[in-house]
Amino acid sequence: MKRNMLTLLLLFAVMSLCAQNPKYVFLFIGDGMATPQRMVAEEFARIIGHGPLTINRFPYHATTRTSSANALITDSAAAATAIACGEKTKNGRIGMDATGKRNLQSVAEVAKSKGKKVGIITSVTINHATPAGFYAHRKDRSQYYAIGLDLIASGFDYFGGGGVSKHNDKKSPDYKGDIYELAAKAGYKVVNTKKDLLNLKPGCGKVLARGSSGSLPYEIDADSSLPTLAEFTAKGIELLDNPAGFFMMIEGGAIDWCGHSNEAAGNLREVIGLDNAVRVAVEFAEKHPGETLIVVTGDHETGGMAMGFAGTGYGLYLSRLAHQKCSIGKFGQIFNNAKKAKGDFSFEDAKKLLTEYFGFQFTGKGDMVLKSAHIKRLEDAFKANRLPQTAKQIMNEFSGVGWTTGAHTALPVLTTSTGVKAELFTGMIENTDISNKLKTLF
Amino acid sequence: MKRNMLTLLLLFAVMSLCAQNPKYVFLFIGDGMATPQRMVAEEFARIIGHGPLTINRFPYHATTRTSSANALITDSAAAATAIACGEKTKNGRIGMDATGKRNLQSVAEVAKSKGKKVGIITSVTINHATPAGFYAHRKDRSQYYAIGLDLIASGFDYFGGGGVSKHNDKKSPDYKGDIYELAAKAGYKVVNTKKDLLNLKPGCGKVLARGSSGSLPYEIDADSSLPTLAEFTAKGIELLDNPAGFFMMIEGGAIDWCGHSNEAAGNLREVIGLDNAVRVAVEFAEKHPGETLIVVTGDHETGGMAMGFAGTGYGLYLSRLAHQKCSIGKFGQIFNNAKKAKGDFSFEDAKKLLTEYFGFQFTGKGDMVLKSAHIKRLEDAFKANRLPQTAKQIMNEFSGVGWTTGAHTALPVLTTSTGVKAELFTGMIENTDISNKLKTLF
Repeated sequence: MKRNMLTLLLLFAVMSLCAQNPKYVFLFIGDGMATPQRMVAEEFARIIGHGPLTINRFPYHATTRTSSANALITDSAAAATAIACGEKTKNGRIGMDATGKRNLQSVAEVAKSKGKKVGIITSVTINHATPAGFYAHRKDRSQYYAIGLDLIASGFDYFGGGGVSKHNDKKSPDYKGDIYELAAKAGYKVVNTKKDLLNLKPGCGKVLARGSSGSLPYEIDADSSLPTLAEFTAKGIELLDNPAGFFMMIEGGAIDWCGHSNEAAGNLREVIGLDNAVRVAVEFAEKHPGETLIVVTGDHETGGMAMGFAGTGYGLYLSRLAHQKCSIGKFGQIFNNAKKAKGDFSFEDAKKLLTEYFGFQFTGKGDMVLKSAHIKRLEDAFKANRLPQTAKQIMNEFSGVGWTTGAHTALPVLTTSTGVKAELFTGMIENTDISNKLKTLF
Repeated sequence: MKRNMLTLLLLFAVMSLCAQNPKYVFLFIGDGMATPQRMVAEEFARIIGHGPLTINRFPYHATTRTSSANALITDSAAAATAIACGEKTKNGRIGMDATGKRNLQSVAEVAKSKGKKVGIITSVTINHATPAGFYAHRKDRSQYYAIGLDLIASGFDYFGGGGVSKHNDKKSPDYKGDIYELAAKAGYKVVNTKKDLLNLKPGCGKVLARGSSGSLPYEIDADSSLPTLAEFTAKGIELLDNPAGFFMMIEGGAIDWCGHSNEAAGNLREVIGLDNAVRVAVEFAEKHPGETLIVVTGDHETGGMAMGFAGTGYGLYLSRLAHQKCSIGKFGQIFNNAKKAKGDFSFEDAKKLLTEYFGFQFTGKGDMVLKSAHIKRLEDAFKANRLPQTAKQIMNEFSGVGWTTGAHTALPVLTTSTGVKAELFTGMIENTDISNKLKTLF
């Protein structure tokens, strides 16, 4: 009894000393990223020598249910609202309750109200559902223009990533002018190029920085003239660091898109792109020990992705995905351009492109040599004018990656955390718990 | 600096006081159970009012890589060896290293050597790969008879569950007689009925108890005349409790089988069956606070199970699985018997069976009314003599559960833990870490 009392007293003393809240909070969200996406990317990264992913090495893991107020399978709007505001809502809502009548307060808004600087970053458009959940309050995620107005009204310090979609939507009932112009009038420095982004200095004021007019390019189609998610994160840290600290949300938004289209190679590159941004935060945390919390989660799973496929049995050949050199969309463009450039473009010509962009070999021996059934399917697809889609399917099957749907699924996502108060994120949690736990830290 | 030093000193003091090891250790393994299986069962259990699963509510969650020494996708033998002995081995090996030359020591053997009592329980045959990993040392999992000899040689205190397969395999080069007879000669009390099992009392000596000649029946086909996994667990606790404590491994073995056959309703019932056994351990732990550790893991994922399917889009209708009343195998028997009993057995007769055992409705309105395409597929299957298989597929599709393979996949499994030293199981771990962490506790 005496010993237990002593233990409790000592424990209380230690806890009191350790009870400081983090000054800097990073919340990374992989859209459409659950354990399958994280682990396909991890195993691939190990194979190609990139090493284990940082997002998976964090000391605390929490299984996170993603159901919305009205469905086991959430959409990104209800998921963003849950993660940002701490309340389950109906699919489609942004920062509002299920009835669509009550605004919810996001963790970013709480952070701002407590004097912290706030940054919102995404690889897709900045008024897409996930980032919008942190600053907007609209009945429907499709109200892009109105969400753009909420972006300006938030007064948050740094928006980075893709552009504002429908920024000059004159059909919107809320139309007041171009969002970029309104943002500039409201005191935002609007930045359009990588050079201008990299030149921003602390003290430059509020920033709305776009790396592209729409979304950033897919990681697999990376364009060095455009800033990456990691570069937006690094600049955010530089601009937002201040004695009161900051809250930053960084979304890897196109993991979801590659899930919807069942593109394994694109999907894992997006996860690695998010991991690269997380590494920037970890480097910062290492310079600010005892002051930083980093949480990495997903909003839902997309695609029913599996690390195995009936056609490959007990084999999983993720290294084959390294041969894919561009997204299916970009391959479609390359393929169409090649067809236009050569009047008698034949399947033999197409095979050269398939070898160049997917690594497929049509003769000889080796890891990338296709079976005759694969070749026949590609030839049929060539004739039917759907070669890119079929090439994608064969790449999945050839590497052993399975998919069950083009939609989201109800698989829980994985939340991992490191740093101050990281231990809050363990066990089985709801997506709403993320916001509610983070809000206690400000 | 001073404050940090004080914190460290206090922390060290607390840790020293808390460093007691658990007296009782339970390790539950769901064969073929990863997050999808745990969560399909959880969401189903919530819907039918059973409530959240105990296995998922444990405070610590660890993402657990399952790759074997020679493959990203493990088999159950290499996985069992990793979990039991702490070393990655080649697929097929039981308690031996990858070369097949060196015996490995299992956590159960370590526990036994330290004076603890040891129990090994499974819902499938007791010399199947997973239980075998804890007491046998054989190059190949198919050496059932020889594994039976190792069972006897282990001297472990309690074996419960399914029977010993190939127990009188005269073709085995190791043949010495019937395993049951040899076990009895070696001092084991061989128990064959539920009544005899329930009548066993502490002090009865070593026990080899089978609930069936082969595996226990599927949970969905439960037979009250046979003992369940939960009952074997309860009896194990009763027989093994002693001042030195015990180590018990309990396997839900048929989760995997329902994964291989892509049977969603059977799969989730097996997970709930395992959860029922875990609840028995939790009740025991509540009576022995501060003395018990419970760990629940899986050996690998089976089936590429997904909580979403292309045909149902964003809908997931797990409640529909409640209508399935028996396993596909049993339905096949019922269907064949009905056909034999009635000479002119027609599709109209088959429809009645489909309504009775799957809840399918063929007319009217309601949740279980099939679409005409489903009915056509069932009719075609009836004519082609493959009705049970097609009924199973339609049940999957109708409820929105997707599958990508009949084999295992490389998806990491989820390890959850509660009790003394449960905090050891968090973050990203290897399956080998489970054994290596547990061994430090004895």
